[in-house]
Amino acid sequence: MTTQSTVIAPSILSADFARLGEEVDNVLKAGADWVHFDVMDNHYVPNLTIGPMVCEALRKHGVTAPIDVHLMVEPVDRIVPDFAKAGATTISFHPEASAHVHRTIQLIKSLGCKAGLVLNPGTPLEVLDWVLDDLDMVLLMSVNPGFGGQSFIPSALEKLRRVRERIDRSGRAIRLEIDGGVKADNIGEIAAAGADTFVAGSAIFNAPDYADTIGRMKAAVAAARK
Amino acid sequence: MTTQSTVIAPSILSADFARLGEEVDNVLKAGADWVHFDVMDNHYVPNLTIGPMVCEALRKHGVTAPIDVHLMVEPVDRIVPDFAKAGATTISFHPEASAHVHRTIQLIKSLGCKAGLVLNPGTPLEVLDWVLDDLDMVLLMSVNPGFGGQSFIPSALEKLRRVRERIDRSGRAIRLEIDGGVKADNIGEIAAAGADTFVAGSAIFNAPDYADTIGRMKAAVAAARK
Amino acid sequence: MTTQSTVIAPSILSADFARLGEEVDNVLKAGADWVHFDVMDNHYVPNLTIGPMVCEALRKHGVTAPIDVHLMVEPVDRIVPDFAKAGATTISFHPEASAHVHRTIQLIKSLGCKAGLVLNPGTPLEVLDWVLDDLDMVLLMSVNPGFGGQSFIPSALEKLRRVRERIDRSGRAIRLEIDGGVKADNIGEIAAAGADTFVAGSAIFNAPDYADTIGRMKAAVAAARK
Amino acid sequence: MTTQSTVIAPSILSADFARLGEEVDNVLKAGADWVHFDVMDNHYVPNLTIGPMVCEALRKHGVTAPIDVHLMVEPVDRIVPDFAKAGATTISFHPEASAHVHRTIQLIKSLGCKAGLVLNPGTPLEVLDWVLDDLDMVLLMSVNPGFGGQSFIPSALEKLRRVRERIDRSGRAIRLEIDGGVKADNIGEIAAAGADTFVAGSAIFNAPDYADTIGRMKAAVAAARK
Amino acid sequence: MTTQSTVIAPSILSADFARLGEEVDNVLKAGADWVHFDVMDNHYVPNLTIGPMVCEALRKHGVTAPIDVHLMVEPVDRIVPDFAKAGATTISFHPEASAHVHRTIQLIKSLGCKAGLVLNPGTPLEVLDWVLDDLDMVLLMSVNPGFGGQSFIPSALEKLRRVRERIDRSGRAIRLEIDGGVKADNIGEIAAAGADTFVAGSAIFNAPDYADTIGRMKAAVAAARK
Amino acid sequence: MTTQSTVIAPSILSADFARLGEEVDNVLKAGADWVHFDVMDNHYVPNLTIGPMVCEALRKHGVTAPIDVHLMVEPVDRIVPDFAKAGATTISFHPEASAHVHRTIQLIKSLGCKAGLVLNPGTPLEVLDWVLDDLDMVLLMSVNPGFGGQSFIPSALEKLRRVRERIDRSGRAIRLEIDGGVKADNIGEIAAAGADTFVAGSAIFNAPDYADTIGRMKAAVAAARK
Repeated sequence: MTTQSTVIAPSILSADFARLGEEVDNVLKAGADWVHFDVMDNHYVPNLTIGPMVCEALRKHGVTAPIDVHLMVEPVDRIVPDFAKAGATTISFHPEASAHVHRTIQLIKSLGCKAGLVLNPGTPLEVLDWVLDDLDMVLLMSVNPGFGGQSFIPSALEKLRRVRERIDRSGRAIRLEIDGGVKADNIGEIAAAGADTFVAGSAIFNAPDYADTIGRMKAAVAAARK
Repeated sequence: MTTQSTVIAPSILSADFARLGEEVDNVLKAGADWVHFDVMDNHYVPNLTIGPMVCEALRKHGVTAPIDVHLMVEPVDRIVPDFAKAGATTISFHPEASAHVHRTIQLIKSLGCKAGLVLNPGTPLEVLDWVLDDLDMVLLMSVNPGFGGQSFIPSALEKLRRVRERIDRSGRAIRLEIDGGVKADNIGEIAAAGADTFVAGSAIFNAPDYADTIGRMKAAVAAARK
Repeated sequence: MTTQSTVIAPSILSADFARLGEEVDNVLKAGADWVHFDVMDNHYVPNLTIGPMVCEALRKHGVTAPIDVHLMVEPVDRIVPDFAKAGATTISFHPEASAHVHRTIQLIKSLGCKAGLVLNPGTPLEVLDWVLDDLDMVLLMSVNPGFGGQSFIPSALEKLRRVRERIDRSGRAIRLEIDGGVKADNIGEIAAAGADTFVAGSAIFNAPDYADTIGRMKAAVAAARK
Repeated sequence: MTTQSTVIAPSILSADFARLGEEVDNVLKAGADWVHFDVMDNHYVPNLTIGPMVCEALRKHGVTAPIDVHLMVEPVDRIVPDFAKAGATTISFHPEASAHVHRTIQLIKSLGCKAGLVLNPGTPLEVLDWVLDDLDMVLLMSVNPGFGGQSFIPSALEKLRRVRERIDRSGRAIRLEIDGGVKADNIGEIAAAGADTFVAGSAIFNAPDYADTIGRMKAAVAAARK
Repeated sequence: MTTQSTVIAPSILSADFARLGEEVDNVLKAGADWVHFDVMDNHYVPNLTIGPMVCEALRKHGVTAPIDVHLMVEPVDRIVPDFAKAGATTISFHPEASAHVHRTIQLIKSLGCKAGLVLNPGTPLEVLDWVLDDLDMVLLMSVNPGFGGQSFIPSALEKLRRVRERIDRSGRAIRLEIDGGVKADNIGEIAAAGADTFVAGSAIFNAPDYADTIGRMKAAVAAARK
Repeated sequence: MTTQSTVIAPSILSADFARLGEEVDNVLKAGADWVHFDVMDNHYVPNLTIGPMVCEALRKHGVTAPIDVHLMVEPVDRIVPDFAKAGATTISFHPEASAHVHRTIQLIKSLGCKAGLVLNPGTPLEVLDWVLDDLDMVLLMSVNPGFGGQSFIPSALEKLRRVRERIDRSGRAIRLEIDGGVKADNIGEIAAAGADTFVAGSAIFNAPDYADTIGRMKAAVAAARK
């Protein structure tokens, strides 16, 4: 099992955009580790969310936690420098959206960001074969991107185990992130399957007490990763 | 000269996205009439800004002023219902981005919104020939959309006069909006050329006192429209 | 006023596709002049209908009347030879769907077909300026293409008059076709505005007696064109 | 070997479109089990065939046999509901045409249809890795889609065997369909390789006696699957 | 009539690409004024020709004459800086290939090049309405771009006269270039219609004596422009 | 280890385009075996280079050596016949750029050319699973296509070994070509990993003595393949 620290990364898509700085401050104070930032362009997925200016505003507001940008856009390369300049820490993208996966990874890293590759529920693992050693993170989608309110797809557990094996074999410190339907009551099982980085949206922002929810999540992960 | 009331519509692209609700409240209290909402999709223009969830958040925050959505996206039709549901008042789009301009106008109106057509600096006026009577607003761009910090393109004044004549001939209550490089010191001239609805971004949000700036803008317009 | 003969062109989109040959035979026996053939590709319009194989089947079935193909597809040029080979008489297309309008017209004519240009309800007439003399037909849409069950857009009458003037000025035998919401009770007014070629779908195929409907249509046109 | 019943699915692309209802009635009376319905959009493949209205017409004509829709279109999702509403039983699509394969499968099933995934001759089997358990059918192309008159590609036999193993390992009742160059004289070999569902176009519709051909096909399959 | 000097601009598409530097040297020594450089990308037109590296090679070879780049590409903006850096003098593009015509013109000029707008045979003149004052050149196509061996389209003469009037009204030094089917025996008529800049390909490079051909062309133009 | 002869294929992108025929003659006289021809369309990669007319010019100039065309274009099929007609010997393409890999291979071969498939640094080997037996060549990219001046990606060595195993298992005479960062001082190691065909651009054309460089390359390969 990996020795990466546990990361809880609340997705700000579920936050209140009218007072986003305050929401992010609160969730970080409540124990969140990263800020997960979902970018949709109405082309790769049928929704349009938030772009680099919102990321930059969080940095200007004083957010120093890692900002974990998930690009659900196509093509990918043109917008990468905008997010690097806006203060992104990690930039992840979908292989279906870039015919040049290796090139996009190098581009992200050349701008000083960490690079992640995102696998849709149906994406074969072979896309990792020749780029895993260049990645800082693999993000497994446990729902289909672009829509809210979906449940965790059960086959993602087996997929996590298979990616975990690949990461462990690589001997490199690559994070394994999961996104979609993660809640306090299934996060232990998900951690046991190999994830170390957990995106959660409504499970955190719709909860009455952020700290309590994040605390229960971390406890469940700790128990599972023991 | 038209009898439409004067509208100042601050573009929230220049506001602080970390406390957007507060920014919008403040600018409305300072005398702004509408909230101008710029949507870019990284396809019609090389930038990605904000989508329907941010619009909806403003409504939930309590904003009751008209929200004036300018779609710099292509294609147009898929996202129109999302904005109608999110609380948009007016939805404007570019004819270059829809092969079915008349259809898109009908779609916007069928969802209870007002419809606007946006003309880029180089777009011929003939695009208005067969749809002006169906429009609630014409938006003239006095800079090229997608980029900030540009100056007002001088030929937009003559273009305003030519659209003003078309609107007056129609006898209908169609707003004439201008967007790009509008400031307190040129707004009078712009109003004299026929605009009644004025988008301003940095000129308002970067000013030390929103009310003072908006006040001077309105005074200059009133003097010009007398 | 033109001296072109009156043409009634039933759109087979409203026919019974399970017995299309019989339907076409019946409507031609009932007095129809042409067969109108609507091709949609799920790209230029959000619907997919019928392609060259269906056209060819009608020719093999024995249909000798002109087949009037309206391409609601983009791009246009690749499929033109398929329809020419399948027996199309006239091939019409939308200028929004071809960056090379003059070239597409020449392509259609080089394959032995007549060429038409289709104007959407919002399309400016200036697209005709430099190609009218190469056209055999102008098709004005009086509804937005791609959807059924729409009503005739009233501004199409004025647009017909303006195209009629252009055709008359050209001194050439160019047909002026109208498509959308044409029925026995408005066809007279439409003919008076300048149309000589009339597409009708449900108005004919949903009528109990094709011959009676077509007869009343022709009578109304004759009265109007007198 | 699977216990799925044998299905012969004549492709109506080879039928006479002028009397399609009668053709379908005849082929079903002659022993065909399903109606295979090939949809091409002139984008995923360079041809345009037939869309939802033709499917709906067959249902209205009284066809109650399963209609097996093969979508050679891209993108896929927009047209799926149209076919579900038009009476499709199974809807199959190509993974190259949808960046969200798992999502498209769920969409098809959510509308009450069975879902199939189609593999081109060159498509790797890994596309099945994470979605096979959600599928009702795998369709292997033994010719390249979009063109008629091609011969069965020999490597498809080995590919059938490999997919058969995967299906058998899954323990689920997933059909294995083959399309391209299937004839009475090679169908036995194809069945022996693992197919249980057989598309045939010209081999059936160009034969003088549908029942005789289908009968010989079924006999050959029965001998092979014994 | 304009006072712009006459320019003969041989299109190097008709030169021998195996010894392009020598060909260009020869044609310039023979009296040619500019080098016309046709760029096709297999998207805006169905052909792919030569890009910035070939332009740069001509500069390194020692060509100091103006290089007149005609972009038959879409989109336009990404490749403009490459040609500016490669030594282009003028960069012309098609309005159908850029939704932001005014922006593309500014981009070209901001990089130190002259900007031209190209009109296809069917393109309406209204695309010039709001950008003519920003242009250094209007290029009228007298054949459809992308294919060789076409004849001069006769309606281009009237189109030249109409653009000439617009340029003269502007009072600015805007060149009027013509491309397609220009030969020594029709260039006088073309010059009389208002062109001052003449592209010719095979008419020059396929001639036995470049200087003689260019000389006859210039004489015919001089006679016509007197 | 394969018994294919060693091939050195200088990429003419690094040659002087002002005297391309002479450059090609010189490099062939200096011992080069093939001419490598890189085609970029500004869509599959962000650069535009040279097309079929340049290929044809080399043939007319008298080049009889194999011309090895690497298509970095999308889509692929439309331009294949142009290159076949222009004298290409081998045509290679990227699977990301064609949804119908098997079909494109057949198309290339039907026109009398040899067919190659190109794998980007991140492309999984599974794309070869069902088409290797139809290929004449596999081209592994050891840099990302579209840009010059990149270094050899080290993981390409392992990838070469894995493709070499597949080719050897196939028992067929399939070339294994490598492109990107190949120089005299690493070519031995690359040959040892399984390549038999070597593209080099600046390493040859920027060297003072082509024959010396190619000679050292061949010696290093011979030593490694012993």
